[in-house]
Amino acid sequence: MTTRAVASAAATVANLGPGFDVIGACLEGPRDSVTAELTGDGLVTLVAVTGDGGKLAPSGGNVVEVVARHVLDRFAAPGTGVKLWLDKGLPLGSGMGSSSASSVAAALAVAALIDSEIPKAALLDACREGERLAAGTPHADNVAPCLFGGIVACLPGDGEVVHILPLPVPDGLLVVAVKPEYDVKTSDARAALPKTVSMDDAVHTAAATAAFVMGLANGDYALMARGCDERLATPSRKGFVRGYEGVVAAARRVGAVGAGLSGSGPTIYALSDDRETAIEIAEAMVDAFSEAGATAKAVISGVDPHGAQVSLLDV
Amino acid sequence: MTTRAVASAAATVANLGPGFDVIGACLEGPRDSVTAELTGDGLVTLVAVTGDGGKLAPSGGNVVEVVARHVLDRFAAPGTGVKLWLDKGLPLGSGMGSSSASSVAAALAVAALIDSEIPKAALLDACREGERLAAGTPHADNVAPCLFGGIVACLPGDGEVVHILPLPVPDGLLVVAVKPEYDVKTSDARAALPKTVSMDDAVHTAAATAAFVMGLANGDYALMARGCDERLATPSRKGFVRGYEGVVAAARRVGAVGAGLSGSGPTIYALSDDRETAIEIAEAMVDAFSEAGATAKAVISGVDPHGAQVSLLDV
Repeated sequence: MTTRAVASAAATVANLGPGFDVIGACLEGPRDSVTAELTGDGLVTLVAVTGDGGKLAPSGGNVVEVVARHVLDRFAAPGTGVKLWLDKGLPLGSGMGSSSASSVAAALAVAALIDSEIPKAALLDACREGERLAAGTPHADNVAPCLFGGIVACLPGDGEVVHILPLPVPDGLLVVAVKPEYDVKTSDARAALPKTVSMDDAVHTAAATAAFVMGLANGDYALMARGCDERLATPSRKGFVRGYEGVVAAARRVGAVGAGLSGSGPTIYALSDDRETAIEIAEAMVDAFSEAGATAKAVISGVDPHGAQVSLLDV
Repeated sequence: MTTRAVASAAATVANLGPGFDVIGACLEGPRDSVTAELTGDGLVTLVAVTGDGGKLAPSGGNVVEVVARHVLDRFAAPGTGVKLWLDKGLPLGSGMGSSSASSVAAALAVAALIDSEIPKAALLDACREGERLAAGTPHADNVAPCLFGGIVACLPGDGEVVHILPLPVPDGLLVVAVKPEYDVKTSDARAALPKTVSMDDAVHTAAATAAFVMGLANGDYALMARGCDERLATPSRKGFVRGYEGVVAAARRVGAVGAGLSGSGPTIYALSDDRETAIEIAEAMVDAFSEAGATAKAVISGVDPHGAQVSLLDV
């Protein structure tokens, strides 16, 4: 009999509100799932990729391999290896944290087989190595909410250290995430970022962050709306997303609290405090993408307070 | 018998924490006071300036005149004039909101004589005209906390509109403000600001703002400390303040939660949650200024939740 771990990790919306590279939210789904089984060969073997990851090579350079290697090196006895099966529920290049969900699920699955007491916080750095592979920088605003759940702010520390600050999540907050059929490569979106921004935009971002965070803390959706205006990254990235302006305008017109690029896009998210409104927002956004020539799919999700989950099974 | 209004408005620390041009706090003192008496001559007459404002011309271009004119034009019957007496408790060019305190006291005194029902919020724009005269821009992060009290964030709206967001003030928060004997002209400090900042510093500022605001909300001084790192304006302004690095380091060494330039300096503020520590911080900062060749004076103050005050008296 062999023990396997099955971990599941959800989509995330990074760059939430004004929080480019800072604020991210964990959705309830869609989810990636990683099954892991320890071996004695010292190797990390990605056995199969199923689901929405058809474009991924079955092995060699997948984030789950990199992350699994980091977890083994840090926590396992020398010579320990692992076999991995990755099931992609998240589309690639969607801006919904596809690589993060794989990374987090891999870290959690491998860690659970080594020692059930390893805390999630000890896995953050390994997950960020997956982001380094996927996007070129170990940014934490997808992996942190994916791992811990809720809405979090990633605070810079010394060097590459980040501190994770859980932010309050107002009752009833819903995220509408609408993905057009085309992809945006995270690395392209990151390469498009300017090295400098205007002082006005930097000050505006700080003020918007104060508004958004206090809006979350007070459950004040009008205040959150005031903060939902991302000016550091969106101006140089929205060109990758055909229909961006129309989709955001459509969401706002039917009552979205705010809307913007999810991660580096092309998914556009909107926020709502009401399920019926969220459905209208989703329809309006899909229609607006359609007017821009893109078929799009909507997800409506609450914010998952728990984050990634893992369970062990004997096979 | 004539009715006069006497209004009093306190020092403020703008650019508090990471909040350049965004976050300001109202101290309990020192304070400026404006006495006003309506006339029928349609003129704004600054009769006298007393106190620490010896360098101010007695009339012609003082912020109190500009502000009084705005309040008269907006709220008073045509032909109404006002005589003003300004008593400066705040030093000029200190970075503690000297012009703001005068502006706010003037607005409140004149308004109280016209109609006691004029809300403070209706006076913000007039006060900001004082800032436009003094500093070249109608920034609100001194006049807003001065007028309303507490700690506030100034959120940009359309054009020059700002929305004022009260932030929570943790129990026991003390501000140590230490002013060296020399002045910094606000207009010089503003001219030194760069037009652009690095993306890293903009993102850092947003993250620091999230930390500082949540620290205020949770009374979490360690989190506030993490956010007390202003990178937009301070790098180009600290050169105006001899001893800046040493004074900030001295404050931190003896337990300050954070420290930085108050407004555009040269006053340096530090935060503490404990009165004995605040006294030590004040001494350490004065000593550090002394090592840099400057005599300095310290004020230790709580955050005044009420803001500027006005009363009427018959003379």
